[in-house]
Amino acid sequence: MPLPTFDSRLDPGVAAALATVAERGVDHVFFVACGGSLSIMYPAKFMLDQHSAALPSDVLNAAEFTARAPKRLTARSLVILCSMTGTTKETVAATKFAKAAGALTITLTTEPASPLGKAGDHIVGFEAPYTTGVPIDAKNSNYARIYQLVLGLAQIFDGSDKLGALMGSLDALQPAIDRAHDHFAPLFADYAPRLATKNVIYTMASGADYGAAYSFAICVLMEMQWINSQAIHANEFFHGPFEVLDKDASFLLFKGLDSTRPLTDRAETFLLRFGAKENILVLDAAGLDLSGIDADLAGNLVPLVFFDTLWRFAYKIADLRNQEMLEARRYMKKLHDY
Amino acid sequence: MPLPTFDSRLDPGVAAALATVAERGVDHVFFVACGGSLSIMYPAKFMLDQHSAALPSDVLNAAEFTARAPKRLTARSLVILCSMTGTTKETVAATKFAKAAGALTITLTTEPASPLGKAGDHIVGFEAPYTTGVPIDAKNSNYARIYQLVLGLAQIFDGSDKLGALMGSLDALQPAIDRAHDHFAPLFADYAPRLATKNVIYTMASGADYGAAYSFAICVLMEMQWINSQAIHANEFFHGPFEVLDKDASFLLFKGLDSTRPLTDRAETFLLRFGAKENILVLDAAGLDLSGIDADLAGNLVPLVFFDTLWRFAYKIADLRNQEMLEARRYMKKLHDY
Repeated sequence: MPLPTFDSRLDPGVAAALATVAERGVDHVFFVACGGSLSIMYPAKFMLDQHSAALPSDVLNAAEFTARAPKRLTARSLVILCSMTGTTKETVAATKFAKAAGALTITLTTEPASPLGKAGDHIVGFEAPYTTGVPIDAKNSNYARIYQLVLGLAQIFDGSDKLGALMGSLDALQPAIDRAHDHFAPLFADYAPRLATKNVIYTMASGADYGAAYSFAICVLMEMQWINSQAIHANEFFHGPFEVLDKDASFLLFKGLDSTRPLTDRAETFLLRFGAKENILVLDAAGLDLSGIDADLAGNLVPLVFFDTLWRFAYKIADLRNQEMLEARRYMKKLHDY
Repeated sequence: MPLPTFDSRLDPGVAAALATVAERGVDHVFFVACGGSLSIMYPAKFMLDQHSAALPSDVLNAAEFTARAPKRLTARSLVILCSMTGTTKETVAATKFAKAAGALTITLTTEPASPLGKAGDHIVGFEAPYTTGVPIDAKNSNYARIYQLVLGLAQIFDGSDKLGALMGSLDALQPAIDRAHDHFAPLFADYAPRLATKNVIYTMASGADYGAAYSFAICVLMEMQWINSQAIHANEFFHGPFEVLDKDASFLLFKGLDSTRPLTDRAETFLLRFGAKENILVLDAAGLDLSGIDADLAGNLVPLVFFDTLWRFAYKIADLRNQEMLEARRYMKKLHDY
């Protein structure tokens, strides 16, 4: 097929990777990572599912991917991997495993010189406040880069024309996040003192927001605050998990703007009917000022708004529990022989 | 292509469905259900991933599937849905949605006359102790039927020859489960009194066993015992969740026999190093007598052994908590307007 021309505002790493993809052709995408980096793969697949009829895809934890060794993994596969520091050993091993199978690999990392950066065929860089210590512009985040890859794939294989709208929307994203901080501030101030006393806090979401709910549950509540948690899918909630709901139960519900929003409407109604409003924190994107963000892509970008604003909530909780955020780990980055 | 001949021991409903699939041809499989029925879709996909290079697949909650409306869903899709009673409204709606897209639908249910049974193109029946009230032979369970579908697909599209081995193994399954009850009985008697006092019990697994861990967490611990829970993937554990581990934390680790077993070895080592052995219940399939079960399929069948034997453990816990199993629900089957 003729090589497509991509929007000139594309990240150069993304553009180079897409050029190779267009030249080689692929018939399957594997999104592979661990933990927080795996959490961005769920919304990436959600976006691909809604924009591509040509490309099937899987989201897999990196160690599961390697041990499972799916038969669909061939020289026609594209494997997209991510690790912020580029040192996650399971993800590096998965990259080598994918390359050995002949697959094309694209690695996302903040450290191009890291083991992951060196292991793949193409590197896509991104910025994270966690590594730089300074605030970043969300248009340079992991989400922003992987979304460019996904809509680039949809352009190559399905003739999608949404990449330009994405680039424009990414420029409008950080201002929208900054406004969202103010929007949610009173809510966070209200709920933090109560939720900081809880031993269990569930997060709940659907569609594009599931990854943010997963990440907040495992990387923030469990990892940094030792609070028991789980990211419950907003409809799976009704098929078992809802039985734990009582007036003491705490939930953080993400109400996004994608096509699965009605699932969270139903969950909200139930939570407020049988739970106590003071323990049910509902983050609703409907009240946000998202000026400049394309209406078709708003649902995809909302999880970035949720996740970024929730960090401030997490710090409030950490403060109230006298438990530092990044320092409060027993094992991660402290233990080196597991 | 010439229509294949299937093993004569196949369930008649499965054989009829596979004949239609072979005649039509399909290019994608969607495994769609809710809750406990969704839990069998994870191992079904695991098996398909390891036996088919031809067929990509997705596992989706039924409401998510309909609301997401993946572009891969076309007249070339096969959608396999399951609801034990056949009354799960989201799954019935998903069947209608899939049919409207022109897809071929196969519904698994214990009630052929149910809304789900009537909604699809092909019905595959199965038995469940839950509905009959009497013990069943595991070879007639939902797992047994969906595995026949999966290996039938692998025969049609990839020339796999494992269906005969599966049918033989299914005949050997119930005796293996009966022996496993005795094998695990002392372990359950030892752990039940301690775990019955816990407010949070995590389950953990990988590969073919993840669905059983998910089901035990949401349908037994949360739904029937109101114990907080989450099914943690055995490698994701190391990327956040492990920070909640202390000497009081309770985990139920499923160590299976598929190719992902090393992931659970690592989790076991960590759990026993930093947790308290008396709160870490390890179900290890390596000690089971699986005579008559094909070695290549043992990993796929082990979750049935785990799940069946764990019911007795669940009843022990219910007894100790003075909380009936099926009666102990606040909302499910009691409330009808949500």
